[in-house]
Amino acid sequence: MKDIRGVLLDLDGVLYVGGRPVPGAVEALASLRERGCPVRFLSNSTRRSRASVAARLRGMGFSIGGQEILTPAVAAAAMLRGEGKTGFLLTIGDTRRDFEEAGVTLAKDRPDAVVVGDAGDLFSYDLLNRAMRMVLSGAGILALEKDRTWMGADGPMLSAGPFVAALEYATGRQAFCIGKPSPAFFTTALQSLGVPASGAAMIGDDIETDIGGAQRCGIRGILVRTGKFREETLSTSGIHPDLVIDSVADLPEIL
Amino acid sequence: MKDIRGVLLDLDGVLYVGGRPVPGAVEALASLRERGCPVRFLSNSTRRSRASVAARLRGMGFSIGGQEILTPAVAAAAMLRGEGKTGFLLTIGDTRRDFEEAGVTLAKDRPDAVVVGDAGDLFSYDLLNRAMRMVLSGAGILALEKDRTWMGADGPMLSAGPFVAALEYATGRQAFCIGKPSPAFFTTALQSLGVPASGAAMIGDDIETDIGGAQRCGIRGILVRTGKFREETLSTSGIHPDLVIDSVADLPEIL
Repeated sequence: MKDIRGVLLDLDGVLYVGGRPVPGAVEALASLRERGCPVRFLSNSTRRSRASVAARLRGMGFSIGGQEILTPAVAAAAMLRGEGKTGFLLTIGDTRRDFEEAGVTLAKDRPDAVVVGDAGDLFSYDLLNRAMRMVLSGAGILALEKDRTWMGADGPMLSAGPFVAALEYATGRQAFCIGKPSPAFFTTALQSLGVPASGAAMIGDDIETDIGGAQRCGIRGILVRTGKFREETLSTSGIHPDLVIDSVADLPEIL
Repeated sequence: MKDIRGVLLDLDGVLYVGGRPVPGAVEALASLRERGCPVRFLSNSTRRSRASVAARLRGMGFSIGGQEILTPAVAAAAMLRGEGKTGFLLTIGDTRRDFEEAGVTLAKDRPDAVVVGDAGDLFSYDLLNRAMRMVLSGAGILALEKDRTWMGADGPMLSAGPFVAALEYATGRQAFCIGKPSPAFFTTALQSLGVPASGAAMIGDDIETDIGGAQRCGIRGILVRTGKFREETLSTSGIHPDLVIDSVADLPEIL
């Protein structure tokens, strides 16, 4: 791992768990910065804008610039902007801000793309009907993520994936997924990092989206035993991390 | 067609369109009854109980007994009752009545099956989360139908299918579908009709669920040019009806 020249870090479960920093994580990040190792943060969160994510991390004591954070909304906004396309957002929180800041035209009618995030309570029969009709009228389905569920306070909660699947089934159209583990997401992160895949490592707690996704792009995958890590998932996933470490606190010494 | 000894009829689009009887349909049905030809009605409607469907048809002038009507809810209720299983209903209207009349135990917690119909506005993030957790805890997904959409007053509306797809995606479990075109549905109808597949005909306006479904069970499929019939669908579906007639009014003369 001594030839790693740039690091991609997942956020939830790696830098923090349950809203509190993982012990040693603040210091590990500071150590990487001291060495001049470029770092980017890859989150699949679709409920917060990049600015909100950065503010939250700073509140936990991490030294992070907003431009270092890549979320599916940021990637989707860049894509729509680059292609001159309009979007209709099925998102909550202040995710909309990422699209506004990128200069994407948000349409309530006949958009080029229906952008589906983890919209929680916003998902209603009425709104899903509207989205379905937009797709039948020609809009593409742009999935910010296709996770099945996320772990809420009292049990699993539906993520964006099931609603993307519903729209796909209703319309017969396939969604384009832009979050982890899509190769486009990792490629965008590498470009921002300024390091080729062979010189980069992805640090994550999700063996499929973080480790599997990175490895398919030629990026080494380092799994941490924090967050959603489970010994069982590691042994049954069929994915072999390049390295497994106890937590992100161990990162400086192995690089 | 002279050897047809029993007839299965779709309702919406065949006997009536937009809440009004198809011209000649009342008389055609009366003619079949005069000849002593057994008739059963197969609807994929999941928003009304069998009793409500019968009352509605009688209001249009059709002579129909409730026991002659087979809906996915009636079939699902019979299946759950036969297997001694409990169900949690994602349905609206008075569909619940079919389950109560069959003696099925309806559970709000840890059911054996989550029964998904076209539940319209009832579908909410909260309710879908509850259903997903039930499936993750071991319940099966029993789909009353898997249609994509139905045509509402102001455009297409999501049917049960997309929500079934969402639950399947979220849980990794496959739904069992009990409505048309499932073979189990046609088999149940034939048993009630008392006629083998080779002696029966299915009259419908949906080339896939009515005609394709029936033909896969060895039942002849007669397509009507009423309801959702479209010349284009007929030519592109790859399904070849045994006969195409203008409307159900033509039925007596061809049998």
